[in-house]
Amino acid sequence: MTIAILGGTGDIGEGLTLRFARDTDHDVIVGSRDAERAAERAATYRSQLDKHGRAADIDGRANAAAAAAADIVVAAVPPYHLRETIESVTDGLDDETVLVTPAVGMSRDDAGMHYDRPGAGSVTELAASAAPDRVAVVGAAHTLPAARLADLDAELGIDTVLVGPTEPKARVAALFEAVEGLRPVDAGPLANAAEIEAVTPLLINVAQNTDGLDQLGVRFQ
Amino acid sequence: MTIAILGGTGDIGEGLTLRFARDTDHDVIVGSRDAERAAERAATYRSQLDKHGRAADIDGRANAAAAAAADIVVAAVPPYHLRETIESVTDGLDDETVLVTPAVGMSRDDAGMHYDRPGAGSVTELAASAAPDRVAVVGAAHTLPAARLADLDAELGIDTVLVGPTEPKARVAALFEAVEGLRPVDAGPLANAAEIEAVTPLLINVAQNTDGLDQLGVRFQ
Repeated sequence: MTIAILGGTGDIGEGLTLRFARDTDHDVIVGSRDAERAAERAATYRSQLDKHGRAADIDGRANAAAAAAADIVVAAVPPYHLRETIESVTDGLDDETVLVTPAVGMSRDDAGMHYDRPGAGSVTELAASAAPDRVAVVGAAHTLPAARLADLDAELGIDTVLVGPTEPKARVAALFEAVEGLRPVDAGPLANAAEIEAVTPLLINVAQNTDGLDQLGVRFQ
Repeated sequence: MTIAILGGTGDIGEGLTLRFARDTDHDVIVGSRDAERAAERAATYRSQLDKHGRAADIDGRANAAAAAAADIVVAAVPPYHLRETIESVTDGLDDETVLVTPAVGMSRDDAGMHYDRPGAGSVTELAASAAPDRVAVVGAAHTLPAARLADLDAELGIDTVLVGPTEPKARVAALFEAVEGLRPVDAGPLANAAEIEAVTPLLINVAQNTDGLDQLGVRFQ
């Protein structure tokens, strides 16, 4: 299987690329608006993995080319770029492609981080509304700590919560299940995404206010 | 110290009463709108604890009398009774009393459970607006699984997230810290409560959709 990480040069994109490339046998393609930047970053990731004793197959391409070659496309871009990023790659997506969205809208005020719930109900549903009907959309990875994911020496022991239609969600769950220390759990349909997205600012608030906690993920137990 | 659990005959009230009475040396008072019902339930809890080898000091009183005698008052009532319950006990609260609110507003649709965010910003802030200014309000215990809490044979290993002003929050944190298997973590001021309250429906959705998970709490790690 081939996984494209659109925005694979960004923080959560970096972590997902490195973990998928290290822990699975899937081909991983780093996507970026700039093909050259994608290729450079793919080389950096290959060299990082090489230091961890893993000869990984990571390619770098422009977002549309990355998406067109992939079975699972992760749109690891900020929420304000999500719609345009999805629209820019849809021509290359077929009805077997699964689009995964980890984006969350947040803002900071004096008290801390807050979830900005969009009119679509959630950022995950916003992504679904931007994708053509033939493409299945699954929400995942909203609550994964980016820097810890990108640090291959860091242990995880955390969950990622999935929402979306059953069969595509099972394919995405199998992908995350293969990442060491990551457990996929299922929160049901896309309409349940807002309650997941609200956890991301909460994790930042807890880390900010509690001694000894940082780069937090969540475990349901 | 004396802890009053208003609505201590309800599900989350039962769990908090039993755990506080078993794991701390504080006096616990079960509050109810009906003093007789409170007294009956207190006797039931004492007998449950007795079977677990613990001779606990649990009293039962009408909500206002319970609150007036307590240092920490937990308003363990449904969100739609929260304002009237707080208003009915405020005469007896002094400026040393800390009011703790675990209530969350939720509704169910075809997809699952959803967080109903009130106009006040959160149910926790709604409680704060119902309390007199002299009484400190702390949000806690929103995400604790009621039936598991009430089952004294069940292990916890989960967190409770606190919000509120610093000093009263530290007193409440110390109370929860004393409960075996429970770790208080701090999410900052009351204004950060909504992101905690959204976790409660999420826990129900994850348990509903994921094989082998039930009565979930959350651990930040």
